[in-house]
Amino acid sequence: MRSLLSGKIAVFVAVLSLAVGAIAMRAQSPPAINLMPTPAKVQAGNGFLRVDETFRLSFAGHREPRLERAGRRFLEQLHRQTALVFASRETVDPAKATLLVTTDQESKAVQELGEDESYTLDVTPSGARLHATNPLGALHGLQTFLQLVTITPDGFGAPVVSIQDRPRFSWRGLMIDAGRHFIPIAVLERNLDGMEAVKLNVFHWHLSENQGFRVESQKYPKLHELGSDGLYYTQEEIRGLVAYARDRGIRVVPEFDMPGHSTAWFVGYPELASGSGPYQIERKWGIFDPAMDPSNEKTYKFLNEFIAEMAKLFPDAFFHVGGDEVNGKEWDANPSIQAYRKAHGIKDNNALQAYFSQRVQELVVKHGKTPIGWDEILVPGVPKSIVIQSWRGADSLVAAAKQGYRGILSNGYYVDLGWSAARHYAVDPLGDAAANLTPEEQKLVLGGEACMWSEYVDPENIDSRIWPRTAAIAERLWSPADVRDAAAMYARLPEISQRLEWVGLNHHTYQRRMIERMAATAAPEEIAALTSLVEALEPLKDYSREGNGPEPTSQTPLNRVVDAVQPESEASRLLSGKVDEYLASSCKDVAKASELRAQLVQWAGNDARLRPLAERSFLVKEAGPASSALSQAAEVALAALDRITLGVPPLSPELKKQQLDGLSALELQAHKDQLTIPALPAFQKLLDAATVGGACPISK
Amino acid sequence: MRSLLSGKIAVFVAVLSLAVGAIAMRAQSPPAINLMPTPAKVQAGNGFLRVDETFRLSFAGHREPRLERAGRRFLEQLHRQTALVFASRETVDPAKATLLVTTDQESKAVQELGEDESYTLDVTPSGARLHATNPLGALHGLQTFLQLVTITPDGFGAPVVSIQDRPRFSWRGLMIDAGRHFIPIAVLERNLDGMEAVKLNVFHWHLSENQGFRVESQKYPKLHELGSDGLYYTQEEIRGLVAYARDRGIRVVPEFDMPGHSTAWFVGYPELASGSGPYQIERKWGIFDPAMDPSNEKTYKFLNEFIAEMAKLFPDAFFHVGGDEVNGKEWDANPSIQAYRKAHGIKDNNALQAYFSQRVQELVVKHGKTPIGWDEILVPGVPKSIVIQSWRGADSLVAAAKQGYRGILSNGYYVDLGWSAARHYAVDPLGDAAANLTPEEQKLVLGGEACMWSEYVDPENIDSRIWPRTAAIAERLWSPADVRDAAAMYARLPEISQRLEWVGLNHHTYQRRMIERMAATAAPEEIAALTSLVEALEPLKDYSREGNGPEPTSQTPLNRVVDAVQPESEASRLLSGKVDEYLASSCKDVAKASELRAQLVQWAGNDARLRPLAERSFLVKEAGPASSALSQAAEVALAALDRITLGVPPLSPELKKQQLDGLSALELQAHKDQLTIPALPAFQKLLDAATVGGACPISK
Repeated sequence: MRSLLSGKIAVFVAVLSLAVGAIAMRAQSPPAINLMPTPAKVQAGNGFLRVDETFRLSFAGHREPRLERAGRRFLEQLHRQTALVFASRETVDPAKATLLVTTDQESKAVQELGEDESYTLDVTPSGARLHATNPLGALHGLQTFLQLVTITPDGFGAPVVSIQDRPRFSWRGLMIDAGRHFIPIAVLERNLDGMEAVKLNVFHWHLSENQGFRVESQKYPKLHELGSDGLYYTQEEIRGLVAYARDRGIRVVPEFDMPGHSTAWFVGYPELASGSGPYQIERKWGIFDPAMDPSNEKTYKFLNEFIAEMAKLFPDAFFHVGGDEVNGKEWDANPSIQAYRKAHGIKDNNALQAYFSQRVQELVVKHGKTPIGWDEILVPGVPKSIVIQSWRGADSLVAAAKQGYRGILSNGYYVDLGWSAARHYAVDPLGDAAANLTPEEQKLVLGGEACMWSEYVDPENIDSRIWPRTAAIAERLWSPADVRDAAAMYARLPEISQRLEWVGLNHHTYQRRMIERMAATAAPEEIAALTSLVEALEPLKDYSREGNGPEPTSQTPLNRVVDAVQPESEASRLLSGKVDEYLASSCKDVAKASELRAQLVQWAGNDARLRPLAERSFLVKEAGPASSALSQAAEVALAALDRITLGVPPLSPELKKQQLDGLSALELQAHKDQLTIPALPAFQKLLDAATVGGACPISK
Repeated sequence: MRSLLSGKIAVFVAVLSLAVGAIAMRAQSPPAINLMPTPAKVQAGNGFLRVDETFRLSFAGHREPRLERAGRRFLEQLHRQTALVFASRETVDPAKATLLVTTDQESKAVQELGEDESYTLDVTPSGARLHATNPLGALHGLQTFLQLVTITPDGFGAPVVSIQDRPRFSWRGLMIDAGRHFIPIAVLERNLDGMEAVKLNVFHWHLSENQGFRVESQKYPKLHELGSDGLYYTQEEIRGLVAYARDRGIRVVPEFDMPGHSTAWFVGYPELASGSGPYQIERKWGIFDPAMDPSNEKTYKFLNEFIAEMAKLFPDAFFHVGGDEVNGKEWDANPSIQAYRKAHGIKDNNALQAYFSQRVQELVVKHGKTPIGWDEILVPGVPKSIVIQSWRGADSLVAAAKQGYRGILSNGYYVDLGWSAARHYAVDPLGDAAANLTPEEQKLVLGGEACMWSEYVDPENIDSRIWPRTAAIAERLWSPADVRDAAAMYARLPEISQRLEWVGLNHHTYQRRMIERMAATAAPEEIAALTSLVEALEPLKDYSREGNGPEPTSQTPLNRVVDAVQPESEASRLLSGKVDEYLASSCKDVAKASELRAQLVQWAGNDARLRPLAERSFLVKEAGPASSALSQAAEVALAALDRITLGVPPLSPELKKQQLDGLSALELQAHKDQLTIPALPAFQKLLDAATVGGACPISK
């Protein structure tokens, strides 16, 4: 394909020298190249291509409406980034294009796993050319170009660069749980836009849960009518979303979790369940007893019809059957199920679940799909065609590959756990034990998926739990394995995060609205202290949230400080970085000390400034313990810093221990509000440094 | 109507005492009542009504789908304000409603000028009741309730209050010019939501301009096909918007500006024009020569058919024919038009325009509508039924009323001029000369309209040019004449502004995106200085923008600092208020001096902090003169403040004059960027005070 293009270079260069608006800008150091995911191969050049209102986009080679639409979206996005006004309605002569996109051939009618997604992008001072085998690569290349466009001292422009790019893994997914909290189509659409921007290519749609059945079934209408509180997707909406995803190079894999996580099915069809019913939509979070009856042939008859309907609705080759977290209690309690089990020589509930899984997988295969399931479905004897989604640990992925099964990694990519971008970024589908797989076995590791479980997200804050951290996961799944420097990732993340807001996500702007709700005002002076608090803290990590405070349900309003804080506090991360730099300078970097001091002084005084608002707002008041903990902890860190910089005597080991214990107590105090103080380790480092024999010389 | 309701009170009270969730909260001082517009009559009580997830809304009396839809929107909005999760799908027994809305009868099939919009709203600790004659009042009352709901120390709640409300004026409008910049339906919709929130009831849709003809005409398709760059509203979209407006108690008055401001018509139909053509869509701003040919019967034949089509499309009784700013040059240059004029005994171009206007008005009347036009149409002999929109001054409104014509005021309400909310707020349709009208004449003054001319707005920043200042205009038009204290208005405006963002407007949040575009990053530390600059400045006022810098066109990107700054800088307004308070304390208020100093120090140092960004971004760089001017001006003010507080000798008159001249020069420097430094008068006051014989005693 390269050769075909190369043959056109001479013509192309001649054309570009004539192109309207493709004016070479004066030579200078090119702007930084902030791409995420980092392409497979990037060769930076000198100078850049000016992007102004004369910018024109054109397509050559294979054409299709999807590419035209992508072109319009590209120009709309370029307008959002720059506010430049393009004459988008005109048909552009390829000879006059600033960016010429050449595509060789069509892609598959239904996007397939492993299709060619490669592209090359060459930007010169006089024009840019994008070449791809098929539209998938063209879509990716357009997103790369958008990321290249930046502001310069002389206008908007894209740096001269030559990029050859293709993904490391073929399955790069984001799962959204629309079961626990219903997530409207518009919210999914903007997240698909975000996925496109970072080249994710699988949207895994978790559609049924104890708390809701979210798909219109024409065959079994009581599923959505009684199982959803009226919050479900119509089949027309689903077809629309599938088309929306296809336009963006994204496959849509539906998941219907069985035999557990299925209470909502049983509200309309209690006969499917192993218990006696009646069933209600579950309002709480956790693992519940209801499970499908694996002993009843009517269950399989129902599922056969249901899967037939859904297999038609969702064109993707894969069909996710869930299969996780069955506690077996309903099976134990049902004598006829136990009798069935014994009669069929099934030794225990695990084996019974395997039996059920096998029957369901047969139905999936019968209706033309390849089953995928959570790692519980990996039991001896299942067909080699299934795909294992590893959530409990990378071990199951390795085990699967060794047995010849394909797998994808989600353990380590659960974005609901509140981990840092760096922590997700360090997780590699071929890392740890998988690194020891043979090359053939490694090929069975298809990629990974970020998972957004939705106990504590709603349409207002879900973007903030997915982005920008999922961009780091997307880089892990797309870029070469050696692209793994967290500092370099963080250097690019703020700009990528901004661009994700440009595509329509609200992961940054939601916070201000939540703060204004808690404060009942937008007056800057009145919300300053609350903003500082919210920006300094993070939600408690992992699954520790349930244990603190009243039991949350699906009706609990997500309007508290814990819902407003970002999973990763930028302010705290920056402060921690400054502490490291300061200590690395042996505490000689006076400017750094001064920056540190300013932030610590602000935090130390913040609780007092927050108090008037806490007296007016119950939502601010309830965060009082965390606010007080932050200020007290900052006070301790400030005293340590002053001890170092002012040269007062170092802390004795006893005093240091006492203060460290104090910090731990303050962290526990913040936990009561389901919050954590992410700068605490940095505070501890300052204490260490201020101690007798600490890292920094104290002058007297 | 009150009596009908009163009869139900006993039942109602009994019901409320049983109502789920209507739990009385502990007695305490009620939260502030921040309503805009201020109701006609407000009686505050003690305590408040708790609003939690058990809140239920129900309707009684006259029912119609519009009310049901209003109820759903109300609950959605209440959810946005609180994040509370309501069981919105259930049908609520009126006996169990927290808020019971009783409506007596239907409103007119097409909303009419002067329909009853009154309502009463009573909030008690156990429930609330809203009563209205017809759905218009119910819609207004629901908005009032939403504004009452606030956060308290014990949860969300609405203060106990009794409100009797009705508007002072029956025509309370917002005009949006969709001609110069096309404004998409979604942007109009969110502005209609904003209008509903502040009880405006007329959307005046300026649909044709030299720069664009924005309506699909099935009769004359070349109007939109050739006159719009493809940016027009389909008839289906228009019907949708009219229905959207009706749902919100808003009339839609279309405007087709004739005979001038009409170049875009002539691109497709040059035979309508007075010149020889051909015509192109105008790209520049200003007053242009093209005008319809008033001497050609074919013009009237065309307009007859066109108005017939549009009169069917827009159901409102009024039809706006424009009529402003005809320069007559095409008429002068066309011998046959001059011959026609003389043959018909028409003495000059003004009379010729009057002749044209009269013919067009006859067509409007023929098709069942009442003409409305800009004040140029008020010429001797026009029928008394027409309505005059006064844009050139309140005088024409007074003149019209004295002659028995109805009128509305727009002079003083042009929100594109960048005036402060207070300045608009001070303009009263019955102020100045109109105050001397007889009561009968005063009744002819129907109200007013905020006008959003769109030379310098696009979908991104238009909300910020309309809101929140238009809320102050809305209060002027709704509330009693004696509600006119600007300080009280400003005390409420931040909260109202916040609520307008909740309904979907982006007048606040757009700014951050524009700043991030200019900075090419969202990193807080990197955008801090630019944010301070943008928050401190305002766009140059009135029509002075054209004279500075290269001539703007409809293709000019609106991405500069001048496009990002708010028409009214909150930071500067706050600083100015503090200066006044400080000086009023005879400079004894040390805390105030310290607050002042902090802001001045920040501004004084801001230009230096901005410089690294200015080196990276052409958009920041070009605002360098304004940035430097702000910092230098703040430096002067800071020196004056320090002179007062530190007790150094007062300024000599010569030095003072020199420094005042310096400030004036700095203001002119900012003008080069089409910006102004709104804190300058406050800086001057500090200089005054620091002078020999100044307001504040300087200690030594």
